[in-house]
Order: sequence, then structure tokens, then C-alpha cells
Amino acid sequence: MGKVAIIMGSKSDLPVMQGAIDILKDFKIEIEVDIISAHRTPELMMEFGKQAHHRGIDVIIAGAGGAAHLPGMVASLTPLPVIGVPVKSSNSIDGWDSILSILQMPNGVPVATVALNGAKNAGILAAQILGVKDQSIQEKILNYMNQLTVKVQEMRDDL
Amino acid sequence: MGKVAIIMGSKSDLPVMQGAIDILKDFKIEIEVDIISAHRTPELMMEFGKQAHHRGIDVIIAGAGGAAHLPGMVASLTPLPVIGVPVKSSNSIDGWDSILSILQMPNGVPVATVALNGAKNAGILAAQILGVKDQSIQEKILNYMNQLTVKVQEMRDDL
Amino acid sequence: MGKVAIIMGSKSDLPVMQGAIDILKDFKIEIEVDIISAHRTPELMMEFGKQAHHRGIDVIIAGAGGAAHLPGMVASLTPLPVIGVPVKSSNSIDGWDSILSILQMPNGVPVATVALNGAKNAGILAAQILGVKDQSIQEKILNYMNQLTVKVQEMRDDL
Amino acid sequence: MGKVAIIMGSKSDLPVMQGAIDILKDFKIEIEVDIISAHRTPELMMEFGKQAHHRGIDVIIAGAGGAAHLPGMVASLTPLPVIGVPVKSSNSIDGWDSILSILQMPNGVPVATVALNGAKNAGILAAQILGVKDQSIQEKILNYMNQLTVKVQEMRDDL
Amino acid sequence: MGKVAIIMGSKSDLPVMQGAIDILKDFKIEIEVDIISAHRTPELMMEFGKQAHHRGIDVIIAGAGGAAHLPGMVASLTPLPVIGVPVKSSNSIDGWDSILSILQMPNGVPVATVALNGAKNAGILAAQILGVKDQSIQEKILNYMNQLTVKVQEMRDDL
Amino acid sequence: MGKVAIIMGSKSDLPVMQGAIDILKDFKIEIEVDIISAHRTPELMMEFGKQAHHRGIDVIIAGAGGAAHLPGMVASLTPLPVIGVPVKSSNSIDGWDSILSILQMPNGVPVATVALNGAKNAGILAAQILGVKDQSIQEKILNYMNQLTVKVQEMRDDL
Amino acid sequence: MGKVAIIMGSKSDLPVMQGAIDILKDFKIEIEVDIISAHRTPELMMEFGKQAHHRGIDVIIAGAGGAAHLPGMVASLTPLPVIGVPVKSSNSIDGWDSILSILQMPNGVPVATVALNGAKNAGILAAQILGVKDQSIQEKILNYMNQLTVKVQEMRDDL
Amino acid sequence: MGKVAIIMGSKSDLPVMQGAIDILKDFKIEIEVDIISAHRTPELMMEFGKQAHHRGIDVIIAGAGGAAHLPGMVASLTPLPVIGVPVKSSNSIDGWDSILSILQMPNGVPVATVALNGAKNAGILAAQILGVKDQSIQEKILNYMNQLTVKVQEMRDDL
Repeated sequence: MGKVAIIMGSKSDLPVMQGAIDILKDFKIEIEVDIISAHRTPELMMEFGKQAHHRGIDVIIAGAGGAAHLPGMVASLTPLPVIGVPVKSSNSIDGWDSILSILQMPNGVPVATVALNGAKNAGILAAQILGVKDQSIQEKILNYMNQLTVKVQEMRDDL
Repeated sequence: MGKVAIIMGSKSDLPVMQGAIDILKDFKIEIEVDIISAHRTPELMMEFGKQAHHRGIDVIIAGAGGAAHLPGMVASLTPLPVIGVPVKSSNSIDGWDSILSILQMPNGVPVATVALNGAKNAGILAAQILGVKDQSIQEKILNYMNQLTVKVQEMRDDL
Repeated sequence: MGKVAIIMGSKSDLPVMQGAIDILKDFKIEIEVDIISAHRTPELMMEFGKQAHHRGIDVIIAGAGGAAHLPGMVASLTPLPVIGVPVKSSNSIDGWDSILSILQMPNGVPVATVALNGAKNAGILAAQILGVKDQSIQEKILNYMNQLTVKVQEMRDDL
Repeated sequence: MGKVAIIMGSKSDLPVMQGAIDILKDFKIEIEVDIISAHRTPELMMEFGKQAHHRGIDVIIAGAGGAAHLPGMVASLTPLPVIGVPVKSSNSIDGWDSILSILQMPNGVPVATVALNGAKNAGILAAQILGVKDQSIQEKILNYMNQLTVKVQEMRDDL
Repeated sequence: MGKVAIIMGSKSDLPVMQGAIDILKDFKIEIEVDIISAHRTPELMMEFGKQAHHRGIDVIIAGAGGAAHLPGMVASLTPLPVIGVPVKSSNSIDGWDSILSILQMPNGVPVATVALNGAKNAGILAAQILGVKDQSIQEKILNYMNQLTVKVQEMRDDL
Repeated sequence: MGKVAIIMGSKSDLPVMQGAIDILKDFKIEIEVDIISAHRTPELMMEFGKQAHHRGIDVIIAGAGGAAHLPGMVASLTPLPVIGVPVKSSNSIDGWDSILSILQMPNGVPVATVALNGAKNAGILAAQILGVKDQSIQEKILNYMNQLTVKVQEMRDDL
Repeated sequence: MGKVAIIMGSKSDLPVMQGAIDILKDFKIEIEVDIISAHRTPELMMEFGKQAHHRGIDVIIAGAGGAAHLPGMVASLTPLPVIGVPVKSSNSIDGWDSILSILQMPNGVPVATVALNGAKNAGILAAQILGVKDQSIQEKILNYMNQLTVKVQEMRDDL
Repeated sequence: MGKVAIIMGSKSDLPVMQGAIDILKDFKIEIEVDIISAHRTPELMMEFGKQAHHRGIDVIIAGAGGAAHLPGMVASLTPLPVIGVPVKSSNSIDGWDSILSILQMPNGVPVATVALNGAKNAGILAAQILGVKDQSIQEKILNYMNQLTVKVQEMRDDL
């Protein structure tokens, strides 16, 4: 079915990144979660980045804040799609630094960036990517989209 | 192997979006290219978005500038991964509007956003996504990454 | 006399959008209020946008936050004037994304944008537009303007 | 049928504001064009603002750049809908000052703001407003929207 | 000795503007304080602006927030120096709109802008201006500057 | 009558600062022009700042770009009003650094900031300040304001 | 071994600047701490800046907020490396003014700028600089880096 | 005397980084220049970062643009002071991404950031750092500062 690695630079990013964990669990997609810091554990990051595709991982979700180098650096080490989650951490300037240092990657090394603190969407995007090879996941996405529509209908009824 | 649809809101976006076309051709990945405007052809966009996954498309790349609604609207219509390319069009405020209106999607509907005018990276990301199901494409990505390294080595030798 | 539709992407936008509802009720202008999400109910949005002018609606007020596509997409579907209210929602970057994704519409498809969270002004603007065909509403606007002046005079007296 | 006044702070704004003039002429809507400066001719502005609705004007389009006070000041003087066009003039900081000083009006005094340099859209919006009372103008808008769709189709055929 | 008028668009600006009132009272400079709204009492503003220099006022301090037109509009009506205080009001986008719509005045009509919420500095600046004609006020400014130095020395001793 | 000192950090600021020189010459106000750099000639700046009011100078205009410290530092040394001109120099980030480092002075030390590159307005503001003590200069300002009005009238006639 | 001077414009900056004090104490590096204000004690600042290298100081850390001139002005007076800490003080616009007025120094006068409120990093940078001449400090830095890695490992174990 | 390594992500950064090379050559300080890309040669970067202090390098200057990870990543690998030069490269959004992704480093891993394109200042800062251990370099800095003063004096004479 596929496997998604969810990494983040610090335990303090976990409340935000939980959004990706939860939605992928809802989709019954296998995940691994780890703390890997570009700046405090660069060797671990190198090892993770180079080995991920050999270890059966299909998609990597990386969250970081401030001068957020983890998503881009991991992207430079792996042939896998890397989804970057800009985290509005306590040291971030309203999230602008997190966004720009993840989004503005040079030609050759893309990071699939989602919204500020958009970990849930990172999880959905990872599922969409796995859905490219696994029809059953694509079905789950279509179901999820239907649920979104239903929830708006319920809000309308409540009005 | 997989197929990538590359759509854009106007012919004027083509010079930027060519970056995605070229790299995907280099990777020998099948593409279709079309002009679909969220604001001028909303019905066509609806049709495209709802049919894409039935027509054998695996990944969608959508480029737009200013109040750039095409990537996010298509994402709301398809279970496929949608890659958004913020285009620094003539009516854009230094690209900030293009970036924010593509990146900041609400929970439930992700767009995989790349750098401003980063169509080449959109193409590579699409290939990485296809590589999840097709080992041969992942090999091409690894080769491409090696070439990037070699080119830097050549620059170093030139210095 | 005319009728104004007030739509928003989520129930969570209602506290902001209430400003438009209240002022239009004060002006005794007929309104309908609905929750329509560009990204979660795109078909409903299409239907709403294409039918509004056939259903006797004269002006549409649409509020949304973040990558706010609702006002611009509805504007692409209707010949009616569409007023956009950028909402500073919880996922917005200080409102900049909401403003730019509503304001920066391409040539051909205008959205009449008001201030961040400016739903009250959206209501007044809708009344001004109806006042173009209905002299009695224009009188109400003139009265309202007088009241603004009187209130400042009262503040001055209080000083 | 209705009449639109197009005013601007300086002759140097005319190349941008021409977009509104041209589209309204295309729609065969009566216009008057004038140069009225909030800062250099405040008395003229007062007079214009207070008299406009007595002189048969239905909608006002006002363009200005930098600390752009003309649209908001005129809006404080008239019960008519005022459309503001932020002009990226030579003294503007990338247009941010023009946008914010037109858009961010206080409660009670709305300005219908369009995109930076979006005079064409200001003209279309004025037509949409007149269309609320004049069915024939609404027809023209619907025709115009069809032409936009046709032009995209032609671009697609050219591709 | 000279007289300073302190005006603001709303009573809600008073807590910020109190900074100017207090420092001018400390300097024993005559002041008048009033609420004058550019958008809600434009005629009053016109009258105030045109009469100020005939009424013995030497300097005008004007505070406003959001699309802050009061300082610039008054400046267009008077030969007196006008000091603008950008107020970070509740409807302001972090103060950027207040600053830009006061600071970025076109050639010909200056506003002496101070820092966001910098009403105290507006008062000191008004005193400096009066000091140009009144040596005794210049002495007070020099004393004030000495006190600033003394206070830092006291902080150093405390350390 | 009064005397205005115009200082700037580098000869490269002269084309912008010429705006202040020209308008003050037009008003027949005595000026002195000098190059004083906060960062390259700090001692000269100290001397200038401390001596200016002893040398018969009434108002100081200081222009600088980037991390623009000259206006604020001179303001910390003199009881005279200091007008700051943010210069959009080649090393400036679109002028934002110039504006913020001049405008955002701490309580106690005001700088009267004008628009980006607004040297002409700095000159007019200096004249307005001198007009507080010299009725004849106030007359010149009133004349200048009339000319601004006349020029707009001429533009209107040309239209 | 070397000595670091830590200066700041106001006692209110001390909670932020404590980060530099603490880490340098941890490294057993000699420090002196002082309050020196560019704008309120310019003469003291001149004296400090010119004497620092004669008094055995090796590195200067200067923190300031808003229009933050202290780091750049001290840099203009000393041959020593000056580290600037942009402080997000109460009068700062989200820290942007603090950053830009410290970072954007003109050619010839560098300030080594660290992150907003990044006083701890300023302390580490000062230690790194002293480490250039003192091998034992470089060892401490290497130890500190190891501890950072260990702490991430502990977080991983906790997960 | 000390040695400075100047690295950059691409040959296209060389015209900007030449500013550091030239001034360090003027100071007769030994340099090595290399092209090392964080994203295209991550292993080379790791090797460089870990070995630099063993190879006799005292200070590292790293220039990069866009999502500029090179300075921060090298800083995570070395106990040496790392000076970051934000480059306004062609893919940068007016330099904001370059600045924020270099400046906003997390606690524990400082980068001494200089102005946008401020390579010359990076070179001077490197010299100042070496001057901490080498009196003769400090003398050169003092001479350089005198020359800056002299050049302003010459500009003044020219005026």
C-alpha cells in the first residue's frame, strides 16, 4: 500500500504535525514518525534522506519553522516526493520565514509545500500520492471529499 | 507509466510553464497540455477536474498568477495530487498574490505548491510522484540528481 | 426593492459576516444567507453562481479566508456585482492571503473587495448598489451617513 | 440607462484609468471623465462628492496612487457606490500603499476596491452595478463573459 | 508661545493620542483636543483645516488608523505643519495600512509622520517646531533630552 | 527668516535630495547642504548635531537609505526638528529598510518622516515649520497651494 | 581568553538579552553588561564605541528594537566585530523594523545580525569568534554541538 | 594570520560574492573560494563543514539565494563562525526569502548575517573576526575606517 515518513525538527513541532499523523491513521496508511533536526542532527538527516527510499518509504512529510531547512535538505537527498509543512513556531516571524525557506527551493530540488501549519493537508497530499499507485487509497480520498461536502450540507441545515 | 496534465490559465503563462513541459519530456513521461481558466472557463475547469482521474491522468500541474484560483479549484474536484505553480504574471504584486492564493488552501484540499515560477520543479515533483509506482522513473530521478552534482563539480573545476 | 445573497465558506465565518446581515436588516433589505464552500462544495457553488440572477438576487456578498476563492469563482459565474469580504480566519497569515486572493482578480472578472473583516461595509455597499435603482434606499444611505456625523458630534460633546 | 463618473488624482493616472473608459465605451454606457485631486483640489472634491448623485451619476470610479485618499474621501461624501482603483504610480511602494489606503476603509464608508491597476475591472463592475437596474446591461455582461470563454477556447485551439 | 491642535478620527484613538496631550501639557504648551473624522465629518474637517491658521494654531497633530486619511486631508487644507500619528487601531493590518496611508503623501502636500502609535513623539516634534520661534521651548527640549540621558544612567546604576 | 540644513549620507543621495534644495530655493529660504555619514563620519555627525542650533539653523533635513541611521542619530543630538527622507538607494530592499529605520524612532526622539524619496515634501515641510515664526513664508506656502490647485485645473482643461 | 561586551538600548531589552549573558556564562567567557542608548546617550555610545578595543574587549553584542541604531552606530566606531540582536520590542512592527535597521548596513560597516530575539545565538557566535584565537573555546563549542545532538536523540527516545 | 573560506551555491552567485573576495585580497588575508551547493552537493557540503576547522580555516563566508540553506547547514557542521550573505538571485522574491532563510536560524546554530548582497561587508566582518587574534589585521580595519572618513570628506569638498 505504501508508507509515509513524518519527520520534524523538534518535539515542539508535534502538536502541529499531529494533523498529518491523524489523517493518515484515518486512511489506514502506514506511517513512521521521527524527530530529525537539520541543524542539530545533520548526520542523522543525511542518513535518513539517503536511506528512505531503500527502506520502503514512499513519501516524506517534513515540518519545520523559522529558517526551515529540513524539508529542502531531505529533498536534496532522496528521489522520493517530499512534502514540506511550514510551522509557525515561536521563533518564526508570523510564519513568513518558515514558508519562504521551504517554498523557494532552487530548480532541480522541489519541495511540495502546503499551507502554514497545514499538516493535515500534508497527510492528505501524501495519501493522494499513494493513491496514484493504489486504487483503494484513491477511493478513500473520494470518500473523504464526499464527507467534506456532507459536512457543509449539515452546516447549511443548521443555519 | 503514468501521465501528467499541465494546465494554465492563459497562453501568457506558457513561457513559465514550459519548464514543466521540458523536464517531463526529458524524463519521457507522457503529458497533456491545456489552457483552462478558472475565471473565464469555469465549466471547462469543472469538467476537467471531475474527469481527470477517469481519463488516466495521474498528476495535475496547474499554473496561475495574481488571484490564482485554478490550482486550488481543480484540487477541490479531483482525488489526484495537484501541483500548483505560482506565476509572477504582469498583474501580480511581485508574486505574493500568486503564492498566497495557491499555498494557503484550507484543511481538506491540499495543493502541492512549488516556488514562484518554479514550473521545472513542478515537473520534477510530478515525476517523483510517478516514481512512487514506477521504479524506472525513480531511477531517472536519481540520475537527474547525479547530474546536478556533476554540474556543480564542473563549475568548481572551471573556477 | 432588491435582494442580497450573503454566502460564506464556513460557519466559522458567520461571526464576521454577521456585520453584513445586521446592517442589511437595519436597512430592511431582503437577504438570503447560505454556506457555500468553493473547495468543499464546488458543484453547489457552480449552481448558485449560475442561478443567482435568475432567482431574483441583485447583489452577492461572499466572505472567505486564507486562499479565498469563493468570491472570485462566484464572480466568474454571474453577471451580478460580487462583493468580497476577506476574512481573517484562523488559518490566515494576518489576513494578507485573504485580501490578495480576493482583490487581485484578473481582467474581465471583478470582485468589489472591502476591508479585512469589513462585512458591515459590504452590507452598506450592497445597499448603495441597490440604491442605484431604488431612490428609497439611497435615502436610507443618506440618513445613515447623517447618523455617522451625529455620532462623532456626540463623541466631541463627551470629550 | 445610467451614468458613470471616472475621476483620478492626476493626468498621469490616465493611462491606467483608460481601461475603465474603454470598457464602458464598449458597453455604450455614458461616462464623464475628470481630474480631481483630494490633496490639491479638496474643495472641488467636496463639491463633486456632494453633487454627484444630484447630477444623475449612478456610480463613481476613482483612481489614485501612493497615499490614495480620493476614493475614500469621495465615498464619505456620496450615497453612491464608489469603486476604487489602486494605481501603481511612480511614487508608490510596489502598489502596497495604494491598495491599503483605498481598501482599508473604516466601518460605515465602503470603497469597492479592485486589483492594482485594475481599471478595466472597475469599468466592468460599474456596468454590473448598472445592470442591477437595467436588464440590457446585464445582457451585455453575459455576452462579455461568453466572449472571455470563447477567447480561451481560441487559445486552446492555437496551442 | 504657540498652540497645538490635536485631532483624531475617533474617541477610540484617545488612549494612543493621550501621549501627545501629556507631553505637551508637561511642556506647558497650549493645546486644543478634538475629534474630527475625515470620513464621517468631512465638512467639519474642511472647516477645521481651512480655519486652523486663522485661529492661532501653529501646529496640527492628527492621529488615525486603517485607511488613515485625516492627516493627509488636513495637510491639503492648511499652510501649517501637520504631524501624522499612525494608530494601530483594531481594524488595522498590524499598522501597515495606517503607516502607508499617512506617510506616502504625494509631492506638494507633506505630512510629518512619526512611528506607529508614536503620539508622544508627535507632541515632542510639535514642541520642537514651536521651539523654532520660542527660545524658551527649545530650552525645555534640551532639558527633556538631558532627562532621557539621566534616566539611562539610572538604569545603568540599577543594573 | 530662518535657515535649513540639508544633509545626506552620500553624494549618491544628491539626485533625490535635490528635490528639497530646489523647493527651498524657490521659497528663497536660506539653506546649507552637506554630506555627513552616520557610519563613515560619526564624529562629524556628532559635531554637526550638537552645534546646529548654535549655528543659526532652524530645521534639519536628513536623507539616507538602507539601514538609515543619520536622521535618527542627528535627532538624538539636537533640539531642532529633524525631517527624515527615506531614500530608495541601490542597496535598499524596495525602500522598506529606509522607511522603517527612519520612522520607527523610540519615544523621546522624534523624526518627522516623509514619503520614500519625498525630498520635495521635506523641503515644503521645512518651509511650513519656518512659517510658524515667519508670516511671509506662510504666505508663500498658501501661494504654493494655490498653484497646485491651478495646475490641476489646467490638467482638467487639457482633458 | 577574551571578553565580550553585551550592550542594549534599554533595561526593557534585558529579558531578551539575558540569552546571550547566560550562554556566555555557561562557556565561562568573561562578559560586561551595560545599558547604552544610541538615541538617549549618544555621547556615551561614542565613548564606548571608540574605547572598546582599547579596554580589552574582543567582541561586542548589541541589542535594540524598532529603529534600532545601536548595533550599526557602534560598528561605525570600532574595529571589533559587532553582533546585532534585533529585539521584538513593544514598539516594533512585528520585528521587521528591528531586523532591517540592523541588517541592512551600508558597505564598509558590517553588523553580524542574528535572528529576531536571537540573543542566545549572539552569545554562541561571540564564543565562536573567540574560538578563532582560543582552541579551548572551540572545544566548548564542539561539546555544545554534541549536546544539541544528544538532546534530539533524547526527544526521539521519548517519542 | 588566519584563513577565510568563501563558498557559494552556484557560479551565478560569484559576481555578488566577488565583493568578499576583493576586500579580503585588499587586506592580504588568505582565502579559498569554492562552489558548494547545499541542495546539489549535500555530501560535499557535509565534508566541507566537518573538515573546515581541521584544515586551518578560521572563518567561513557562505552566500546563497532563494531558500538559502547553505550558510545555516554549514553552521550546523562547524565550530567556526559562519557569515551568511543573502544573495538577491534571479529566483528570489526581492531577496526576502534569501534573508529570512539565512537569518532566522534556531537557537544553538547562529549564522552571522549581513545585508542583502552584502558580500563586501561579509569580507570586512571576516577580517574583524581575524583581527581578534591578530593585531595587524585590526590595524588594517582601523585604516580602512579612516579611508571611509576621508572619502566622505572628499565628497564634501567636491560639493
